[in-house]
Amino acid sequence: MPAEFEPHSGCWMLWPERGDTWRLGAKPAQQAFAAVAEAISRFESVTMGVSHRQYDNARRRLSDHIRVLEITANDAWMRDVGPTCVVNRKKGQIRGIDWQFNAWGGLSKKLYFPWDQDDRVAQKVLEVEAMDRYRAPLILEGGAFHVDGEGTLITTESCLLNANRNPQLTRRQIENHLKSFLGVQHIIWIPEGVYRDETDGHVDNLCCFIKPGVVALTWTDDSKDPQRKTSEQALRILKQSKDARGRKLVIHKIHQPGPLVMTETESRGLDYSPEAHPRKPGDRLAGSYINFYMANGGIVMPLFDDLHDDAALQTMQKLFPDRAVIGVQTREILLGGGNIHCITQQIPAL
Amino acid sequence: MPAEFEPHSGCWMLWPERGDTWRLGAKPAQQAFAAVAEAISRFESVTMGVSHRQYDNARRRLSDHIRVLEITANDAWMRDVGPTCVVNRKKGQIRGIDWQFNAWGGLSKKLYFPWDQDDRVAQKVLEVEAMDRYRAPLILEGGAFHVDGEGTLITTESCLLNANRNPQLTRRQIENHLKSFLGVQHIIWIPEGVYRDETDGHVDNLCCFIKPGVVALTWTDDSKDPQRKTSEQALRILKQSKDARGRKLVIHKIHQPGPLVMTETESRGLDYSPEAHPRKPGDRLAGSYINFYMANGGIVMPLFDDLHDDAALQTMQKLFPDRAVIGVQTREILLGGGNIHCITQQIPAL
Repeated sequence: MPAEFEPHSGCWMLWPERGDTWRLGAKPAQQAFAAVAEAISRFESVTMGVSHRQYDNARRRLSDHIRVLEITANDAWMRDVGPTCVVNRKKGQIRGIDWQFNAWGGLSKKLYFPWDQDDRVAQKVLEVEAMDRYRAPLILEGGAFHVDGEGTLITTESCLLNANRNPQLTRRQIENHLKSFLGVQHIIWIPEGVYRDETDGHVDNLCCFIKPGVVALTWTDDSKDPQRKTSEQALRILKQSKDARGRKLVIHKIHQPGPLVMTETESRGLDYSPEAHPRKPGDRLAGSYINFYMANGGIVMPLFDDLHDDAALQTMQKLFPDRAVIGVQTREILLGGGNIHCITQQIPAL
Repeated sequence: MPAEFEPHSGCWMLWPERGDTWRLGAKPAQQAFAAVAEAISRFESVTMGVSHRQYDNARRRLSDHIRVLEITANDAWMRDVGPTCVVNRKKGQIRGIDWQFNAWGGLSKKLYFPWDQDDRVAQKVLEVEAMDRYRAPLILEGGAFHVDGEGTLITTESCLLNANRNPQLTRRQIENHLKSFLGVQHIIWIPEGVYRDETDGHVDNLCCFIKPGVVALTWTDDSKDPQRKTSEQALRILKQSKDARGRKLVIHKIHQPGPLVMTETESRGLDYSPEAHPRKPGDRLAGSYINFYMANGGIVMPLFDDLHDDAALQTMQKLFPDRAVIGVQTREILLGGGNIHCITQQIPAL
């Protein structure tokens, strides 16, 4: 699996629609998703999957150069429901992995029900891309791991070893699946992800590879914030770790926004639904600047109208001196439980 | 516009689903559509558009090498709702025309209502093909005209000049649109199409170009059959006509099947629907062997388990000596009001 910072042929997204995830009939989220799509499309081609119900609306709200296709989904998290692409450069081949999906924990947590359409998204994307597909024998989401493209994978125990994912598999068996499907040799296990991240702590909200040997990590200086312990724990493990090539990792901290919480007004804008996790006033939001997308020559990163925004932007520009860094206000995406990385999925260039 | 007998990059179809067009929950029609798709896929790539409801079923009933994508439509007539592609060989460009669609006559006839999703199909196909699109200022269906790829177009007055299509346009204005959008110079007008053809007489059920200067025409030896007069009329006009290059046309007759009528059992298998034209026992079916598809190196033609099948197959093989001719039993498609040509749409190769 190539790293996200390697060249892409394009980016896929899904259009937000459901009123029990996205407030006010999803209109504010649609604006944010559209802003993300427009930003990414400055660097690479973007395809937006949308239900037939929202086709006209999405088509009208997006520029002509963004491709809009019909793809039915239960929600809009392309990172987690889309394919993970792997390449064989010697043979000039690219294929997609279609992980099994149970909406981040199935009925035990019921973030929403059902997730039958989500589980078909990877296949549908791969048919458009005319790529062969591996249907994987385990439940996994694209946001649950990051790779450096040189044999190293980072993930979290709280997610991959959670009994709500693959209780029938041992840690070793999961490692073997990751190694064989993704072509990695070395796995770095971090205990848990960002505080109150409803995915059981996807690594893509906590830390990521900037390039081989270099990792960015969400951080807080507030020793009383519950995120502090998690970030310290991750920092300790990353510092102790070597990657697949035997390098020690250089770690850059990026201070988190907030802490951010859902407001009364925001919560009131949601549909009540017995089939979706309630999002209540005062709920801590798992905000993190790490949840960004690496486009060809660009970085599209979340902003929160927060006092930490400027520092995060500056750090990111230092970490990616050769790329244009674009910030997009994404509180409306965060309210739904994720951010820019969660709603995008790159297709590597061959 | 290249002729259908020129090389294609592929073929598009739509999956039949509605129970008021297709009897027995559309299962027999789905088998026939699948057989057509499989036959065409022996010669060129085939993409099947399907609603999210029928995705799993279509995916399972079709071979892996047939691409299945989500495209919502009101029914399954890709010829009429899909794009018409035109090429500029000098510039190496290919673009699609997105005709306006009103379900063959709008509310005046109401074959079915609504047709809003049908009218988006061409755009959706073109987005997958990543082709630029012309939205045309007139109502027209792909089955309403045939071209020879060398400047000649054949169509019928009963359809294109019908008050239920473009009453605001004169014959001259319609001709000018056809010339400018399709790049043709000469139009041959035949008064009407096949008897009881519910499209108001699409030319693609009556006659077609086999190659420049050569036309195949549906025929009956039965002087009392109402089709006889129509075929004679068409024959007379075709004999009098020259094409855009000044050639006289050579016409080959292909004897029609039947006459075929809908049975009591067939009619009883349909859903009753106030929004669709009733299909009653004894209804004459507009069966014609002309309604075939020209694939790369192959012909996929309708058969009706009829005593004229063999002669039609033989004639077709003589007309296309360099192509493999495959017959598919398509009575189940005819019961819905069309045949192989109506449910397919080629994308020309550049």
